[in-house]
Amino acid sequence: MTTHPLTMPIPEYFEEILESVRSDVSGEVAQYIPQLKDADPNPLALAMCTVDGHIYGAGDDEHEFTMQSVSKPFAYALALQEQGPEKVFATVGLEPSGEAFNELSLDGSTNRPMNPMINAGAIAVNQLINGSESSVEDRVEKIRSYFSALAGRELNIDRQLSETEIEGADRNLSIAHMLRNYGIIEDDAHDAVLSYTLQCSVKVTARDLAVMTATLAAGGTQPLTGEKLVDARVARLVLSTMASAGMYDEAGQWLATVGIPAKSGVSGGLVGVLPGQLGLATFSPRLNSQGNPVRGVEIFKALSEDMGLHLMSAELLTQHAVRAIEERGDTTVIQLQGAMNFSAAENFLFTVTDHDFTGEKVVLDISRVPMFRPMGRRLVKEGLRRIRDNGFKVAIYDPEDILPDFDFSDGTKSPQVDDPEEL
Amino acid sequence: MTTHPLTMPIPEYFEEILESVRSDVSGEVAQYIPQLKDADPNPLALAMCTVDGHIYGAGDDEHEFTMQSVSKPFAYALALQEQGPEKVFATVGLEPSGEAFNELSLDGSTNRPMNPMINAGAIAVNQLINGSESSVEDRVEKIRSYFSALAGRELNIDRQLSETEIEGADRNLSIAHMLRNYGIIEDDAHDAVLSYTLQCSVKVTARDLAVMTATLAAGGTQPLTGEKLVDARVARLVLSTMASAGMYDEAGQWLATVGIPAKSGVSGGLVGVLPGQLGLATFSPRLNSQGNPVRGVEIFKALSEDMGLHLMSAELLTQHAVRAIEERGDTTVIQLQGAMNFSAAENFLFTVTDHDFTGEKVVLDISRVPMFRPMGRRLVKEGLRRIRDNGFKVAIYDPEDILPDFDFSDGTKSPQVDDPEEL
Amino acid sequence: MTTHPLTMPIPEYFEEILESVRSDVSGEVAQYIPQLKDADPNPLALAMCTVDGHIYGAGDDEHEFTMQSVSKPFAYALALQEQGPEKVFATVGLEPSGEAFNELSLDGSTNRPMNPMINAGAIAVNQLINGSESSVEDRVEKIRSYFSALAGRELNIDRQLSETEIEGADRNLSIAHMLRNYGIIEDDAHDAVLSYTLQCSVKVTARDLAVMTATLAAGGTQPLTGEKLVDARVARLVLSTMASAGMYDEAGQWLATVGIPAKSGVSGGLVGVLPGQLGLATFSPRLNSQGNPVRGVEIFKALSEDMGLHLMSAELLTQHAVRAIEERGDTTVIQLQGAMNFSAAENFLFTVTDHDFTGEKVVLDISRVPMFRPMGRRLVKEGLRRIRDNGFKVAIYDPEDILPDFDFSDGTKSPQVDDPEEL
Amino acid sequence: MTTHPLTMPIPEYFEEILESVRSDVSGEVAQYIPQLKDADPNPLALAMCTVDGHIYGAGDDEHEFTMQSVSKPFAYALALQEQGPEKVFATVGLEPSGEAFNELSLDGSTNRPMNPMINAGAIAVNQLINGSESSVEDRVEKIRSYFSALAGRELNIDRQLSETEIEGADRNLSIAHMLRNYGIIEDDAHDAVLSYTLQCSVKVTARDLAVMTATLAAGGTQPLTGEKLVDARVARLVLSTMASAGMYDEAGQWLATVGIPAKSGVSGGLVGVLPGQLGLATFSPRLNSQGNPVRGVEIFKALSEDMGLHLMSAELLTQHAVRAIEERGDTTVIQLQGAMNFSAAENFLFTVTDHDFTGEKVVLDISRVPMFRPMGRRLVKEGLRRIRDNGFKVAIYDPEDILPDFDFSDGTKSPQVDDPEEL
Repeated sequence: MTTHPLTMPIPEYFEEILESVRSDVSGEVAQYIPQLKDADPNPLALAMCTVDGHIYGAGDDEHEFTMQSVSKPFAYALALQEQGPEKVFATVGLEPSGEAFNELSLDGSTNRPMNPMINAGAIAVNQLINGSESSVEDRVEKIRSYFSALAGRELNIDRQLSETEIEGADRNLSIAHMLRNYGIIEDDAHDAVLSYTLQCSVKVTARDLAVMTATLAAGGTQPLTGEKLVDARVARLVLSTMASAGMYDEAGQWLATVGIPAKSGVSGGLVGVLPGQLGLATFSPRLNSQGNPVRGVEIFKALSEDMGLHLMSAELLTQHAVRAIEERGDTTVIQLQGAMNFSAAENFLFTVTDHDFTGEKVVLDISRVPMFRPMGRRLVKEGLRRIRDNGFKVAIYDPEDILPDFDFSDGTKSPQVDDPEEL
Repeated sequence: MTTHPLTMPIPEYFEEILESVRSDVSGEVAQYIPQLKDADPNPLALAMCTVDGHIYGAGDDEHEFTMQSVSKPFAYALALQEQGPEKVFATVGLEPSGEAFNELSLDGSTNRPMNPMINAGAIAVNQLINGSESSVEDRVEKIRSYFSALAGRELNIDRQLSETEIEGADRNLSIAHMLRNYGIIEDDAHDAVLSYTLQCSVKVTARDLAVMTATLAAGGTQPLTGEKLVDARVARLVLSTMASAGMYDEAGQWLATVGIPAKSGVSGGLVGVLPGQLGLATFSPRLNSQGNPVRGVEIFKALSEDMGLHLMSAELLTQHAVRAIEERGDTTVIQLQGAMNFSAAENFLFTVTDHDFTGEKVVLDISRVPMFRPMGRRLVKEGLRRIRDNGFKVAIYDPEDILPDFDFSDGTKSPQVDDPEEL
Repeated sequence: MTTHPLTMPIPEYFEEILESVRSDVSGEVAQYIPQLKDADPNPLALAMCTVDGHIYGAGDDEHEFTMQSVSKPFAYALALQEQGPEKVFATVGLEPSGEAFNELSLDGSTNRPMNPMINAGAIAVNQLINGSESSVEDRVEKIRSYFSALAGRELNIDRQLSETEIEGADRNLSIAHMLRNYGIIEDDAHDAVLSYTLQCSVKVTARDLAVMTATLAAGGTQPLTGEKLVDARVARLVLSTMASAGMYDEAGQWLATVGIPAKSGVSGGLVGVLPGQLGLATFSPRLNSQGNPVRGVEIFKALSEDMGLHLMSAELLTQHAVRAIEERGDTTVIQLQGAMNFSAAENFLFTVTDHDFTGEKVVLDISRVPMFRPMGRRLVKEGLRRIRDNGFKVAIYDPEDILPDFDFSDGTKSPQVDDPEEL
Repeated sequence: MTTHPLTMPIPEYFEEILESVRSDVSGEVAQYIPQLKDADPNPLALAMCTVDGHIYGAGDDEHEFTMQSVSKPFAYALALQEQGPEKVFATVGLEPSGEAFNELSLDGSTNRPMNPMINAGAIAVNQLINGSESSVEDRVEKIRSYFSALAGRELNIDRQLSETEIEGADRNLSIAHMLRNYGIIEDDAHDAVLSYTLQCSVKVTARDLAVMTATLAAGGTQPLTGEKLVDARVARLVLSTMASAGMYDEAGQWLATVGIPAKSGVSGGLVGVLPGQLGLATFSPRLNSQGNPVRGVEIFKALSEDMGLHLMSAELLTQHAVRAIEERGDTTVIQLQGAMNFSAAENFLFTVTDHDFTGEKVVLDISRVPMFRPMGRRLVKEGLRRIRDNGFKVAIYDPEDILPDFDFSDGTKSPQVDDPEEL
């Protein structure tokens, strides 16, 4: 009897977040190559993918852009997967780079780049892929192909941008020559930079990035295809490195206040991850003085603050928020369990959106829910309202008085029942 | 009809870990004060406390020792709780301290200590507690009292050790004078160091530390008393700081390979935490060249490797591993759900240990378990064996052939059933 | 027949320099102790002493002030003299301290202070004097006594300033505790700082400092008393250290552009030295943002620029600028030789001021002078004019046309002669 | 009546020094290019040129080698001369580079290379010469031509070595790209390194280097040709930079103990300078771990120790050590004046070697000599002995008993006289 399917309120919440930051046009697009300098600075996107493969997007989440430094964690995963951690650790370290003025961030005693999230480390990581004897084309095709598998669709390379970029790539050429000087890489410096630049020129959307990052969050299993692309140990290493070195000099500050291991790129991309939970991506080209996307950083802060998405949060993803959906006569009883944070609410919403309700009444039994986080409360009630709007009579069973009120977002209220089957 | 209660195999597993490291007597006890230098180097302890308040210990887990630097995260929590993050951030930063030779690790532009996990930061944090006007005694009593609440028992201070320690405290006196010089602290330098030294002299056991740390893991709720001692935001900040700065210069390496935010002390204590899951503590006085307890570090590595306890692990604590325990005639059916990692197995074991079995038969239904981690498999089978040893007839229902075999640790096997109620 | 003695034009030239900087009241007096904060900021002095013991002063060159950091090179000389270079080098290094933010400037591998011109090094040097077992009073008396010998008069200590200073000496106490922590010093930290502070409180005038510095310039022989106070090797070490580390972070810049190894103090003193030539001292209390006296720095720049006083100058002190003074009938012939720079002109002026002229005529024979520096030309002509003003008929013998003109500063001219005896 | 001309004992003394270090074959020749790696490691040379143009050489002082880093001070002089100090300072700083691990040694705030003695600075300096629009060939010809003028003969470039060197020049290419990245240089990175490498490939002998360095010592006047090649201010700047930054990390140590501003090159050259006095050069290809020539460093230490050649020495070059040589009947009286250090003795020896003695007797009048340095005493007595060996009767007039004995090096003695004309 449903006239239209239930819709998920999460994209609408995401739209709200985008609106709240859209008017901030501070910062500047990257100036160093024409393609980035002349790019439209206005696109704004947010996408999320859960480890279960649920994707939510808002704004220009289908807009393509080149990955740039956002490619670093994924190329690092490929190198670790292909060459093994020991070989990779012998080439690139794991520590934050510290002093910004130390241009090359090579370890003082080993001359290894400090970590794979800085350019020196990323160029060295790129060279490991497909072996040091590989041609640039073979290596880049391997990367493109792996990134495509992570994204779940064929990705392309913006070769024109890549060509322009390499013309002004003095900084990276400087790094590549120094890496050669120390025997960290063997290839011709120009080819090494070309190879890295092509890696950076893979074109993605925010949705792609969310899926790719969710693969890392899921311990290496691509959440849409189910393909095992990364070993669990490798996934942990990549996420750890994003946590300790992904946000440059302010690693400690970012980890404490935002708490989402992340990596940004000069084209405007920003990816984040919560292990075991989800991958996130935003796109907005204007950068702040540290080179991070202004609005992307704001969105991450909002997600961390409002949705409790923080690595150190005590509230975990409850994978079984919906304990059971039982039909009892013409009443469907939905039993929730565990703390209702964003992830739990998403699990509930996804389950009910997918469910084929029958009968006339739906009772939400929250007797096994010890607490609601604000975002969980909002999303759960919104889900129940939409069930009602699809023509069902709804009610809440809340024997412990966990909910402060039963108001819906449209000003109406949900009735309560004293017994889940009583409605 | 149970002749003796079920016992939990986790302490036995912990004993195994202790045995595997016990023979390593490398490293040296701290030399700088007689009380530590002359301390027995042999005690060895491991304790864990889950956010649900389940405590597991092994070895000398009731042996008392002074906290030393292990006190830093807890004092930081108290200062944040009492003074608010803004005031605390104005005094002490959040970044890793980087270069080890920069003796004071003060931020170049603000002169704030880099983070609260180094001595400069910890002395400044100590001074924030109870306000800068506080007497040393009042401040220290506040700290002792707060630590006692975190531990769930009254803790005492080793004042004699504290007095000896302050005599040779040139390094800390140097730091305190420099903090005064920059206006970071206001109190007399000697009193500041005395106050900090007394904080370091609070005596605890490994079990105490596990409980205290579990309070942070639980978002601030003491898992035994249920008392809310730390705001969720404060708990996140403390854990973040342990992750980025707790293990000194090798923060990145530790986070990547061990993946348990941690803090050590020169008396031999080492605490670690997995947010939302558990607190860990080890005790072993011999230190490596970085000043970390040799065997404590080995234990943490084993726990991370064997039990999958890694912050970046995709496998979360399944809070509802036991979906239901149902009596069907003389058969009790235990339904498991979700991935069976250590935490899930602990949840199962804790539940069955607590359960009052009736009837004659027990069937373990693992049809809703998508996968077992090795440690989860071991612990779940061990639990079932102990139910059998208590006089029940047991069997496993595994329609998806998830388990590779049905062998118990004593060489016997569990029967299988094709229907959970068939046994 | 001279009606009044010849006067030396150098003090007048010095007065000119002082006038040229007197109106610059930028900068601020040191704020950290009342005695310095409330001191009169206006005194202005310049003094010079040659290795021959000729003293020239201008302005408030008899005004007493405390030495502060200006004491460092002299205490270093005493420690080297007393303990030998090897023992001193084992305690304090010889390298510039580099990074200003590294508060303690201890060498990363040895923990020695980087050099004796920074506080850490100066406190350690002070502790070497009279042996580590010495009482503060005995050590300080030794220093006062040695400084008095260098100055050629009994110097006193401003004990009241010293007492006030030590009250707020957190920075130095911090350093002293860290030095104790590393075993660089053994004494109680408070006593070490007291001892150093008393060293800094020795009261001197600019004239005293010029003489003390000239002793170093003269390879250790006090130019007034002829006493050998410093070994030549020690003097070289002290001067080298002033050159490489005396002017803090800008050692290279100062050496290149001013070229006078120097050391400043917060009370307003600034000393400089040209080995084998002279010692210089200025006094002016207002300091620039680097802590150097504003007008003192300007004076040094003027002396370097105008007088060619630069360590790397090719023009050396001509110790025998006056080859001979011969009486030929009623004509006195003064034969000059060598390049006429400031030092040569000073040698000429000093010689003629001292000479008891007889007869009626004086001829200046410059046939052996290959070139005049502007300051040399100015001073030589001024000397000749003063001889004329004392009642003699004067002329110049310049067969090579070295002088561009024969004008005196009062608008008159000197006659020329074609033969030195012809006048 | 002289049967053979007087010979100068200085080359013999230099030979002695070479013999004293010849057996030290520690260290290794530079490995990074075949031409250096395969070079004969045994040549050993020492040459000195005074500001008066007296050249003394010993060993393989006519052996040609490429300048390498020894070219840096001379190219810096050319750039300063051509472009003016202000433009040069805007491109390259004046400070020691400090931390060795900071690979590029760029100033943190301005991105300028720290000084012209490190590769980054030297490449930038090279690019200033002949303007940024210059072709490589025009610039290099200008440099070759200027170096030739400094040496007083046409120098050639080892183009084959230069070509090999650029093939492995990753470090310099890295630097050049980074300099381009910061806008410090504008030319193509490969061309910039080629231009610098050609500068380094100018071939010289130790004698050439001594003359070139003496030009700087002489304030810019080539001592052989009398040509004014460098302004006095420029010469001071170059020498200052050698003093503060020429010997890499140990600038302070070198300045204090050796006291000769210096610069070394990987091919084995080492130049030093004492302003106003002389230029020095050694050649010996084996390098110590800091990259300085092992035997060259030893020779410099010996020269500093034995000959008192130290920048901070109080004993200056006495330009007029021989006051007069007077014929009195058949006696020639040589009057010395001033302190007799190496330079004074050299002045005496040069004068007497050049003098056409007549008569039968020679008296050395040392009544105006206040002191002898050991090397001065040795050389002066050796000169007198050689006059005797040429057939004259010699004696010393020493009324103040300055000399401890009158022994010659061949075991004979000089007579004394009580009156210079009495012999």
